[in-house]
Amino acid sequence: MLFTLLFVAIVASACTSTSGIDQEIRRVMSAQQEAWNRGDLEGFMEGYDRAETTTFVSGDEITRSWQTVLNRYKRRYQSQAQMGTLTFSELEVKTAGSDYAVVDGRWQLHRENDAPHGRFTLLFRKTNGNWRIIHDTTTSGTP
Amino acid sequence: MLFTLLFVAIVASACTSTSGIDQEIRRVMSAQQEAWNRGDLEGFMEGYDRAETTTFVSGDEITRSWQTVLNRYKRRYQSQAQMGTLTFSELEVKTAGSDYAVVDGRWQLHRENDAPHGRFTLLFRKTNGNWRIIHDTTTSGTP
Repeated sequence: MLFTLLFVAIVASACTSTSGIDQEIRRVMSAQQEAWNRGDLEGFMEGYDRAETTTFVSGDEITRSWQTVLNRYKRRYQSQAQMGTLTFSELEVKTAGSDYAVVDGRWQLHRENDAPHGRFTLLFRKTNGNWRIIHDTTTSGTP
Repeated sequence: MLFTLLFVAIVASACTSTSGIDQEIRRVMSAQQEAWNRGDLEGFMEGYDRAETTTFVSGDEITRSWQTVLNRYKRRYQSQAQMGTLTFSELEVKTAGSDYAVVDGRWQLHRENDAPHGRFTLLFRKTNGNWRIIHDTTTSGTP
């Protein structure tokens, strides 16, 4: 009986831990979405690890370092109209070891004249107690 | 003196280990490139983990399971002319924990009438002693 309870307790704590990571990561992404939708690119970039190694891949381009990724966003989105309304959906979080997680999902922008969309794969790492994106590969669907 | 030697030996073995992973992964990808270029899609797919969870992302599409990824390739590349000549380049391998590695790189196809190209981010996992792709996100550059 004691062993059964102990077993249940261990399994329960393992499950809480995984879903805890899931929740923490969804919170980070939800904060990113909110920041984007108020036109706050710096706030959006809080989701990324503030490091030289932070990497963003899209099209045939690879961009490295938190600051350079921010500069790229600033160049491409110069007004709130260009930023439009961002929605993340179909998020799936999978842990990889204890400090990493892979997140798949869809992104969609609603703007006055178009609605670009696609997918992304994010690699999160837990650094200093916080889950942050260290690698982002973003794809684009045909318009 | 003994400690210095020991320290050097430990550092050297750590370095060998990381570059060993790098070499193993490059060997897997080089075998993939060779398989592709002889029109052997099954051989190309040997680089991927033969699992239901194996994931391929491109455009606005996510494909799951080794078999379904193979079927997708078969549907899109029905002849050696469509497959063309594949070249991987700019490979960068980074380990993430002891069992995972992230690989960034470029792909390019040379075909009679076009030369599509783009980038990819692969997540490799060591399973049963072999490094295999468990997740592939592939982007396309503008033609």
